[in-house]
Amino acid sequence: MKLDEFSLISFLSRKLSIFQPEVLIGIGDDTAVVKNGNKYSFYTTDVLVENVHFLDNWKSNVPDFYYFLGRKLITISASDVASMGGMPVYGLINLLIPEVYDLKELEEFYEGVSELCNELRISVIGGDTSKSSAKTFSFFLIGEGKKFMLRSNAKPGDLVAVTGTLGDSAAGLEQLLKKEIKVFPLVERFLNPTSRVREGVEVSNLGVITCTDVSDSLVFNLYTIAESSGIAIKVDSKNIPLSPHLLTYTTGSREKALRYALYGGEDYELIVTFEESLLSGVESLGFTVIGEVVEGEGVFVDNKKVEKKGYNHFGGER
Amino acid sequence: MKLDEFSLISFLSRKLSIFQPEVLIGIGDDTAVVKNGNKYSFYTTDVLVENVHFLDNWKSNVPDFYYFLGRKLITISASDVASMGGMPVYGLINLLIPEVYDLKELEEFYEGVSELCNELRISVIGGDTSKSSAKTFSFFLIGEGKKFMLRSNAKPGDLVAVTGTLGDSAAGLEQLLKKEIKVFPLVERFLNPTSRVREGVEVSNLGVITCTDVSDSLVFNLYTIAESSGIAIKVDSKNIPLSPHLLTYTTGSREKALRYALYGGEDYELIVTFEESLLSGVESLGFTVIGEVVEGEGVFVDNKKVEKKGYNHFGGER
Repeated sequence: MKLDEFSLISFLSRKLSIFQPEVLIGIGDDTAVVKNGNKYSFYTTDVLVENVHFLDNWKSNVPDFYYFLGRKLITISASDVASMGGMPVYGLINLLIPEVYDLKELEEFYEGVSELCNELRISVIGGDTSKSSAKTFSFFLIGEGKKFMLRSNAKPGDLVAVTGTLGDSAAGLEQLLKKEIKVFPLVERFLNPTSRVREGVEVSNLGVITCTDVSDSLVFNLYTIAESSGIAIKVDSKNIPLSPHLLTYTTGSREKALRYALYGGEDYELIVTFEESLLSGVESLGFTVIGEVVEGEGVFVDNKKVEKKGYNHFGGER
Repeated sequence: MKLDEFSLISFLSRKLSIFQPEVLIGIGDDTAVVKNGNKYSFYTTDVLVENVHFLDNWKSNVPDFYYFLGRKLITISASDVASMGGMPVYGLINLLIPEVYDLKELEEFYEGVSELCNELRISVIGGDTSKSSAKTFSFFLIGEGKKFMLRSNAKPGDLVAVTGTLGDSAAGLEQLLKKEIKVFPLVERFLNPTSRVREGVEVSNLGVITCTDVSDSLVFNLYTIAESSGIAIKVDSKNIPLSPHLLTYTTGSREKALRYALYGGEDYELIVTFEESLLSGVESLGFTVIGEVVEGEGVFVDNKKVEKKGYNHFGGER
């Protein structure tokens, strides 16, 4: 039997209960949210599995590949906390490795982990280790904040904005899979993405209450906002920020670059929606307005409804 | 390169830092301990990996095997929180499964998970899912308490006591590995152990400050107390509680049964040490005194120093 990742989890989770009234958000947003005195705690976890999220042979193209992977493990969870407007604080790492392993690779991996934890001031306070036939790294991250944003708060009339540029990561992954590195900075964006922790906290402080991160794809994650908020989103493709590197990769074709930007995953940029009165504040944090929230359902690019698809670890494109 | 689990983790973790003064205990006890207002939060994680912690073919001997495995995943983390004297509160599950899987097995697994979470009132608030060549289940558990116990608080003159009976789980595992089930209740102890949450909280309330759980083996875990407290422990083997089932399995031989009790893992009973003035209180909670803390180093059974060994997922016996 095969079910996609999202359907499987909601199917299996239907018998689980929430017992504490402090749990404000359980499964279903970027992190869980638990009220903790006069602040909120955020809980999230992410996994990187060999042959699913990465291939060991990428190290032949990227000598310090495991260093990047260590950084990435922390970044993808930090991005979840960022999209709630929280600060990452404590983490636990599970390390599953084959019985015979390369200690130098693991040291590189932990070098990346510790560097990023030092940058974000995350204390690693625990973990578990086991052998396994598939190299598997998981991270549990606890964040904190005075307030929080959700996917489900978008309202008609809101503007939609994103941080950074989109599509770079997918174009980086493509090069790794083809084993033909033409534009290395895009590969670096895939291997070494940035979590937008500062932007998340600051945009939340401005009063923005709707946010998620681009993990699956811009279109896919716009759909998660649209569906959970019960609204539609219209995007103007000419406003989607693209990097010079991506345009170099597509030999100047904006149309080709947009395919990566709309349907490629793992950019870990933030998407926010907000009332127009907050526009100058949001823009001053480096966000680019790409569209608006309207009544209805679905995601529209240049007034054409687009399919909800992106990267699905259970079956490639979804 | 091969390093055992404990050496590897301490080697790799040496570059990680603790940034928050609220972190009272990081890596190195049964859970991390973080001060949280006027209470403490406990963080722990455990992993069950196919072909390391369980074999898929055990389901031919135990029809509802995945139901038991779901219960066990929660129990082993709850046992860590129990050994701090805390109550488990929130959990996140990571589910890694092959691309093609048996949905009925997963439903059974979640049936076990949800049943145990309901028993212990644990709210499952998140998780991640991915495909993987090895079935892998990880649980991340957050507990809370007003005080906490550590491995490192044992003092010469303390008595040493344990909950329940020891060795059952190892004798259960042996039967599964031999595919010859003689005494099923022992198999059940291995598949469906009990976390001693109530005993942990109550013994901590009595004033006991030294505790750990028997995950690796009685001797191994006594060593973790002895080493971290800088003391020695003397055990009187005639006082080690053995179950009638284990004695049936060893056809009445107490000597054979003691080998399982001393060196078998995964009993998830609690070990405490405490001042003699607390004796009647500790005994009234169902603990059995098995020895005493003395000056020196090492663990002694019937006055003979024993080797630090138990079950090590990295290489069988350790």
